[in-house]
Amino acid sequence: MPELRRDPVEGRWVIISTERGKRPSDFGKEPEEISDKLCPFCSGNEDKTPPEILAYHNPGRERNKPGWWVRVVPNKFPALQIEGQLNRQGDGMYDKMHGLGAHEVIIETPDHTQELSDLEDKRVEDVIWAYRDRIMDLKKDPRFAYILVFKNRGAAAGASLSHPHSQLIATPVVPKRVQEEVKGAKNYFEYKERCVFCDMIKQELNTTTRIVAENDDFLAFEPFASRFPFETWVIPKVHDSDFEDIQKHEAINLSHMLKAILEKIDKVLDQPPFNYILHNSPLRENRLPHYHWHIEIMPRLTKVAGFEWGTGFYINPTPPEEAARFLREAE
Amino acid sequence: MPELRRDPVEGRWVIISTERGKRPSDFGKEPEEISDKLCPFCSGNEDKTPPEILAYHNPGRERNKPGWWVRVVPNKFPALQIEGQLNRQGDGMYDKMHGLGAHEVIIETPDHTQELSDLEDKRVEDVIWAYRDRIMDLKKDPRFAYILVFKNRGAAAGASLSHPHSQLIATPVVPKRVQEEVKGAKNYFEYKERCVFCDMIKQELNTTTRIVAENDDFLAFEPFASRFPFETWVIPKVHDSDFEDIQKHEAINLSHMLKAILEKIDKVLDQPPFNYILHNSPLRENRLPHYHWHIEIMPRLTKVAGFEWGTGFYINPTPPEEAARFLREAE
Repeated sequence: MPELRRDPVEGRWVIISTERGKRPSDFGKEPEEISDKLCPFCSGNEDKTPPEILAYHNPGRERNKPGWWVRVVPNKFPALQIEGQLNRQGDGMYDKMHGLGAHEVIIETPDHTQELSDLEDKRVEDVIWAYRDRIMDLKKDPRFAYILVFKNRGAAAGASLSHPHSQLIATPVVPKRVQEEVKGAKNYFEYKERCVFCDMIKQELNTTTRIVAENDDFLAFEPFASRFPFETWVIPKVHDSDFEDIQKHEAINLSHMLKAILEKIDKVLDQPPFNYILHNSPLRENRLPHYHWHIEIMPRLTKVAGFEWGTGFYINPTPPEEAARFLREAE
Repeated sequence: MPELRRDPVEGRWVIISTERGKRPSDFGKEPEEISDKLCPFCSGNEDKTPPEILAYHNPGRERNKPGWWVRVVPNKFPALQIEGQLNRQGDGMYDKMHGLGAHEVIIETPDHTQELSDLEDKRVEDVIWAYRDRIMDLKKDPRFAYILVFKNRGAAAGASLSHPHSQLIATPVVPKRVQEEVKGAKNYFEYKERCVFCDMIKQELNTTTRIVAENDDFLAFEPFASRFPFETWVIPKVHDSDFEDIQKHEAINLSHMLKAILEKIDKVLDQPPFNYILHNSPLRENRLPHYHWHIEIMPRLTKVAGFEWGTGFYINPTPPEEAARFLREAE
């Protein structure tokens, strides 16, 4: 079982994979490109993954067979494991617990060569519904405190398989970075009695220079203090702390927006590696007046080096106003 | 002038290089390997850097000429600029200030092909004295709140030149990550009335499984909650919050230890890219009972992906106990 260990100074948790224990010679090899014949996420290879948790599929299709368009499976090499209890305990001055959690893969398409942004709008919308379905289901498990949905595209962004997929990890504690974000937003709310994200949306709509796109429900913009070149946030214009509250018209408009932004990023930056992360409120805190869910998209164009690790400062060589202009003008 | 912008939610500062403004086509190119003929850090090319700030050199040598063994110069493309005042101001709901600071390069050797760990002990010690000399000098400038000394080795760790060098950045605010570390250590002190790092040293010396090496003044170990495979900390065994207080015998023993650890890492991991960071107390807070300076060495073997960005959780596939064993047994 993986072990969760807590840093006694900063309080961050680390997942130590005691079982997969990588030896020195295991590092430095780039993952080999897997052809669609061998790819476990391709249609026809359903037996190469653990049994599916969820699939959107044609009527009459058999489980774990072709005929699906979105498929969710447990990660074959999970960072955290679903069985058991937390078993919090000390180790002298240190703290640890079992590496309990869920780690799932959302396969976005049966077709190896289609990117998320290549899919029809309706299919992108179904990926969004799959995120929601899984969150709603895992939320029932009282052992989980947070669910992170994210996507790594490209080896440099941490993807080990090129077949388009997202991932979901349910954690037994609220991660430190999420706590900080929620706490920062709460501090602002206590001072101003307004949601900091709602204020950002208002100011961005006024300033306009950092806006990339807008539709009825969503705004896409480059944040004022962007850490990375072409960092782009997609945020619902009306206050809501919980992604899983999303309405049908919002899911439609989110799929339009996400597809458009990913197309723009691919066009302007020539299909860069990227991560996107769904920032959502912790599972046991709902309908928060101070928090506002959103998606942060981060192309991986610069290398994070000693200065960033040591300080948490980021050096961004592209002002967000310029990045927004390039993205706005694409297509 | 670069601009410092503050994220309104999390409070982190970002350096926006408004002048160097990178366009989309500037990304994705790997830096070209520069030969020693063109390398600005090589002996004989002193005119390719801004005028030197400090050099340890042979008697009678002329400034900015050969005959040195450690040389400190301003970074030609500084992340922060030395002239001017902070000029804190608002921009609607946002906060910004001038990108004021110092950004220097510590050239560790005149020889392009020698790694820091290849240098004689006495030369490594001089690199350590150069760190200290520059900290002592910059500390006098009341505009600075923190000085970060760090080293990036290898392109994957963010180094743009292969000639062995360290860097130093003085910042006008205490970076968020440093604040968190000092605060975490202070919380522990308030609860236990003991330094958390001193407690770690005691437990590591007792447990022994995570120790890599030890000498009279320093301990090198893999932390219990290592974020990265083969992450190694080098820490003075006697409590001290301020690196710049270092005594002669400590500088000697630190140079022995640093050289030994870097040699071990190179041997076990086949000269991996790495970062190391000097964790030191903020400039205006000295002789802290709760903080303990140290160096964190992080080989860059795994890729930081969406999950790490979204949570601040790290997934480490090599238990620190195993990493320590490999490093201990090397040579």
